[in-house]
Amino acid sequence: MPETHLRRRAALRSRIAERELDALLVVDLRNVRYLTGFTGSNAALLVHAEDDERTVFCTDGRYLTQSARQVPDLERLVERPCGPALAALTSAKGYRRTGYESHRVTVDELDELTGLAEGVELVRAPGLVEDQRMVKDDDEIEALRMACAAADRALADLIEQGGLRPGRTEREVARELETRMLDYGAAGPSFDTIVAAGANSAIPHHRPTDAELTTGDLVKLDFGALVDGYHSDMTRTFVLGAPADWQRELYDLVATAQAAGRAALRPGTAVADVDAAARGVVEAAGRGSEFLHGLGHGVGLEIHEAPSLAKTGEGRLLPGMAVTVEPGVYLGGRGGVRIEDTLVVRDGDPELLTLTTKQLVVV
Amino acid sequence: MPETHLRRRAALRSRIAERELDALLVVDLRNVRYLTGFTGSNAALLVHAEDDERTVFCTDGRYLTQSARQVPDLERLVERPCGPALAALTSAKGYRRTGYESHRVTVDELDELTGLAEGVELVRAPGLVEDQRMVKDDDEIEALRMACAAADRALADLIEQGGLRPGRTEREVARELETRMLDYGAAGPSFDTIVAAGANSAIPHHRPTDAELTTGDLVKLDFGALVDGYHSDMTRTFVLGAPADWQRELYDLVATAQAAGRAALRPGTAVADVDAAARGVVEAAGRGSEFLHGLGHGVGLEIHEAPSLAKTGEGRLLPGMAVTVEPGVYLGGRGGVRIEDTLVVRDGDPELLTLTTKQLVVV
Repeated sequence: MPETHLRRRAALRSRIAERELDALLVVDLRNVRYLTGFTGSNAALLVHAEDDERTVFCTDGRYLTQSARQVPDLERLVERPCGPALAALTSAKGYRRTGYESHRVTVDELDELTGLAEGVELVRAPGLVEDQRMVKDDDEIEALRMACAAADRALADLIEQGGLRPGRTEREVARELETRMLDYGAAGPSFDTIVAAGANSAIPHHRPTDAELTTGDLVKLDFGALVDGYHSDMTRTFVLGAPADWQRELYDLVATAQAAGRAALRPGTAVADVDAAARGVVEAAGRGSEFLHGLGHGVGLEIHEAPSLAKTGEGRLLPGMAVTVEPGVYLGGRGGVRIEDTLVVRDGDPELLTLTTKQLVVV
Repeated sequence: MPETHLRRRAALRSRIAERELDALLVVDLRNVRYLTGFTGSNAALLVHAEDDERTVFCTDGRYLTQSARQVPDLERLVERPCGPALAALTSAKGYRRTGYESHRVTVDELDELTGLAEGVELVRAPGLVEDQRMVKDDDEIEALRMACAAADRALADLIEQGGLRPGRTEREVARELETRMLDYGAAGPSFDTIVAAGANSAIPHHRPTDAELTTGDLVKLDFGALVDGYHSDMTRTFVLGAPADWQRELYDLVATAQAAGRAALRPGTAVADVDAAARGVVEAAGRGSEFLHGLGHGVGLEIHEAPSLAKTGEGRLLPGMAVTVEPGVYLGGRGGVRIEDTLVVRDGDPELLTLTTKQLVVV
């Protein structure tokens, strides 16, 4: 999709020019991928403020063939390490002001860049590409849609074929989910799959163990698929056998909070208010202190990216933002429930990318 | 293994005291894991120069239960984000000089830390834990041994059961290797598995595609297992069917270079000389320019860590270092061969952790 990347670089150029920079040095690999399509493990990009002809891509000798194929449209430098090589280039080209990703470049790396960018003023320019990445374009939403579908399908198969049953271990269930996502086109899981049964479900980020699923357990599955570099993220909580009253009440509370969070996902809404919409439901039930984390987060080339839908989150929603909504309430020693979807903010109602039912499913 | 972590922190304390610091703020998660055993996704550690009683571990509310179990022996702070919370603590405790990981802390993060560590001098202290991590202790070598064994076994099963055969795709082979490693106790692959057939084998870091394996192909497999946080790394190259003369010659050249690299792995040897020992063999054959990367790298909690066995590598080998030796020669458009083992530097001969044969196997 060279046009896609061309368009993204063009949009970035206006941000660079606004800051009166000659160029922006992009060292974050996800940002490089977003701007070029390059998927290797070492690269950097020097985006010129005025035109693409002066934009330079850098990678090392391992990626000669791959970068020629993936980034056919940019001047290429073959060096290792890439950030310093491009910093030196800004000096050789006589740039006056070059922006750098001060939220990624370490204190020690800045020393090295400064030493090489002789005569160039290195200017902090944090988050320029991430800001742009918050609003997804159609190609990105398509990748997220495929990633969400792979996760939905894997879960549907797991349930239909009796994969959630007493006697299986958390680890076995996690592995089956991950394998099924591969069957549906995922390159891998988008993060370490969480399968938490019984009292373990009260641990928000429990890692699967050899503990066996038992009748009466709440079973929480938090997982996602990685497709074309994009991460899906979903959580569902089941009950094995007939739910007890406290389990049903807990489930209904979280489901109501989750619906309130989704309903608040509208362009212009402050992200902190989205968190508050869901959290208010949990607080009103007297369980605010058992909702141990933020409501959600952006997803895309990273599993956690801006915006943060949390009490302390800043900014407002825009159409095209892709986020999770995932309230959870955890009763220590007993069990917990979390329900999570990935959605896209749209004018009007948000678009659900996670299509699995949120009814309480008793397996 | 609380004693293991206690011992590691004690060893680190002497490095901290040497630098006349009151404490070291550790924000790198691998370093936190190494020093505490904590395996969650958010934590930091403030290691006091004098004793463990004043060392403080920080994580957030998602990890209350997990951190209580994994880090029972340290004072705990529950905050998010952790680095800033611990920086504020150094100020509250009246520390004068606190070291920080300037190779990990970004330019923007340092601003935040500085604002919070009022009255405290923040001192660059890059790589203190990484330096210590270069020499592995017995627990670490045991984890690496298990990780290497999982990879060896997965490959043996793949070959024995006919998994490398004409008509299979690179992607299918990669997936089978990864699944088999899980069967042998891996938590996952230690990096994206490389399966490269035919001309693709000339691309050092080729990603598996739907290309089919064909009789006469060189097939290069570079993969590893993740066990208890430790990464194994191995490469083998096969020929499908009877090898052509050029394939056998190429294989023999790389095998000879690899043996020379292994033979040079002795305590006291400069790492650049280890690279030179293997590279010299390839250069003498007139193929120096087709050996496109360094000879090897340290492995442990990261797939690539110090020391770097490369032309530009610095320092000398010490007993207990775990490294890869992986020369490769790549004939663009035709095919390439790489052979890689994970080894531990010992007094005398190095210890091979990768036990698969390096004879040319014709499948």
